[in-house]
Amino acid sequence: MNQSYEVKREDLRRFVAEVFNACGVSEDNSRTAADVLCYADENGFDTHGVINLERLYVARLQDGRINPAAEFIVKAETASTAVLDADHGLGLAAGAEAMDMAITKARGTGIGCVVVRQSSHFGSAGYYTSQALQAGMIGIAMTNLGSQTVARPLNGTVNMLGTNPIAMSSPAGVLPPFVLDMSTSVVATGKIRAAQRKGESIPEGWLIDDNGKAVTDPEAYDEGTGHLLMLGGSYETGGAKGYGLALMVDILCGMLSGANVGPDPRVLQPGGVQYAQEDQNIGHFFLAINVEAFRPYGEFVSGMDRMLQTLLHCPPNSSANKVQYPGYPEALKQRTGDTVALDQAVFNQLEQLAERLNVPAPVLVMEWA
Amino acid sequence: MNQSYEVKREDLRRFVAEVFNACGVSEDNSRTAADVLCYADENGFDTHGVINLERLYVARLQDGRINPAAEFIVKAETASTAVLDADHGLGLAAGAEAMDMAITKARGTGIGCVVVRQSSHFGSAGYYTSQALQAGMIGIAMTNLGSQTVARPLNGTVNMLGTNPIAMSSPAGVLPPFVLDMSTSVVATGKIRAAQRKGESIPEGWLIDDNGKAVTDPEAYDEGTGHLLMLGGSYETGGAKGYGLALMVDILCGMLSGANVGPDPRVLQPGGVQYAQEDQNIGHFFLAINVEAFRPYGEFVSGMDRMLQTLLHCPPNSSANKVQYPGYPEALKQRTGDTVALDQAVFNQLEQLAERLNVPAPVLVMEWA
Repeated sequence: MNQSYEVKREDLRRFVAEVFNACGVSEDNSRTAADVLCYADENGFDTHGVINLERLYVARLQDGRINPAAEFIVKAETASTAVLDADHGLGLAAGAEAMDMAITKARGTGIGCVVVRQSSHFGSAGYYTSQALQAGMIGIAMTNLGSQTVARPLNGTVNMLGTNPIAMSSPAGVLPPFVLDMSTSVVATGKIRAAQRKGESIPEGWLIDDNGKAVTDPEAYDEGTGHLLMLGGSYETGGAKGYGLALMVDILCGMLSGANVGPDPRVLQPGGVQYAQEDQNIGHFFLAINVEAFRPYGEFVSGMDRMLQTLLHCPPNSSANKVQYPGYPEALKQRTGDTVALDQAVFNQLEQLAERLNVPAPVLVMEWA
Repeated sequence: MNQSYEVKREDLRRFVAEVFNACGVSEDNSRTAADVLCYADENGFDTHGVINLERLYVARLQDGRINPAAEFIVKAETASTAVLDADHGLGLAAGAEAMDMAITKARGTGIGCVVVRQSSHFGSAGYYTSQALQAGMIGIAMTNLGSQTVARPLNGTVNMLGTNPIAMSSPAGVLPPFVLDMSTSVVATGKIRAAQRKGESIPEGWLIDDNGKAVTDPEAYDEGTGHLLMLGGSYETGGAKGYGLALMVDILCGMLSGANVGPDPRVLQPGGVQYAQEDQNIGHFFLAINVEAFRPYGEFVSGMDRMLQTLLHCPPNSSANKVQYPGYPEALKQRTGDTVALDQAVFNQLEQLAERLNVPAPVLVMEWA
């Protein structure tokens, strides 16, 4: 690990909200967006946190690709479903509003499903499922990347797939909740970029070259000579499943809402490669399942505790390993204090942004090597 | 391929329904169960079709593990959700009834979610999503295996996970629909058993030994020396994702309905290994999403056609390969005639079953080597 800097959680939230507000976003939406972004850093998904504040959000709010004054409008609605048009605004705020709607609907009819179109990057999918957790519900959140693509369909030579993440949370009783938050590619591209920054090689199984041979140099990804694999890798080891899951996400997020999707016919036209960079009109999918509509809540969470405890008690294959479940290691980390750790490079980025936007920078609490 | 036998589709359905009926199942449920089982053979999922008729269904109907006279009872219900208790009956029939309920609810409120408990093996998950397709809806179907387990949690040494499949279908316009039907393990165990029968080795990446080394002898799985990997394989290549998806299926199918789940504390008790074989009280999860509640159906399916056509037009990485999408190759196969091909061994099994139950065997139409 690089030298790490720690700031107070609340101070980081205050800073991020002020940055959004300085870009013209309403106070309410700025606060919501700051919650979503800081959630990622606080829960160990630092590839989706404030590291992206400038590149994915501030830059786009300032050049007009994201509309700071967007008004989110419900375009279609039933007792259990809705379509929200985000008006090219911050996906971070539209996503939180959409999951809130899904939760409200699930209180009435047992389940709520809200999709969002004309949106932008929504950060860490796990934030939205944590909203459902707070309401005592199971939450599912997915997003596509609009027409931006990072990977090829199985057997193909043109990028047509995003990393298309899926998150799912379920409440438990005394144990930390189940929180799955995964891209449908072998890894999120943020992990390749992290290896680039650190000058490290990457494991076999992430990238292949044109002949299908493993590539371990992370630079090959941006050079176009290393192609990202979908979950499962090659056809023989289940690559068709990761490919299929990514398409499922595109259908539920993009096709159902009317947003863009990865397999966009424009990429096959002359000069179409530019469309593979187009991450406007992103779509999201949110599902809230009200446990109480199915069985008594207390019965459900004590069943969850028994199930999760059984996994934690599973004898490990070596004394160096433990059996855990998704959400458990992150929850253990989360409980240690009221600060959040940032890479030095990220902290410096935030300080420069603070100066440029004339917003007070977060205060350094502690520094360690 | 082994020598293959062909029978008329309708004749095979007639035969399977008569077999169920001869075991005491009602005519209605027998017909439904036959539809589900034959769907698998007709759509290339032959590991989930009539090959299992005797082992997973007839034997259990006769020894009482499956209740032929089961009555399916709705235990909880809201406008959009329900819990169905299958009374230890045929999962094949309870599953079809549950998805029908979900579809009816989705007509009213945009989305319907029905879970089933006290059920048994439901065959091919893709059948249930095809019910949604026929109603012009997106369908999702999952099942767990009760407390029966075939794989270990990541880093663990005790089996606590089923193959826990996920299926998802979406209608298209003129192109075949999108149909994803996948286990969350690297492969379904049926494919390992198929390699055993054929005396073939299996690819690296399906099984590992106690030291984490690849095992290519399919017999090692039943000998307990080869351990099935979840989708993604090792931790470095996304194994935590397949593990997480399997747990998601256990939560949605087992925990939400009150059925059994794979990580059952009894497996850690002395002599607990027997519980890992217990596939009673299986749970299922069905979701129907009414496209019309989100956007005009015609707009949706022409968008689907554009997306799927783009994938089919993606230039392949070799002249031997084509880019396809889940559901496309199966649909091409499905359109060829009104017969279905069976392995000779499977056909012989059916003939013996016919004699034993005094039901007319399916008639052989064509034989080829």
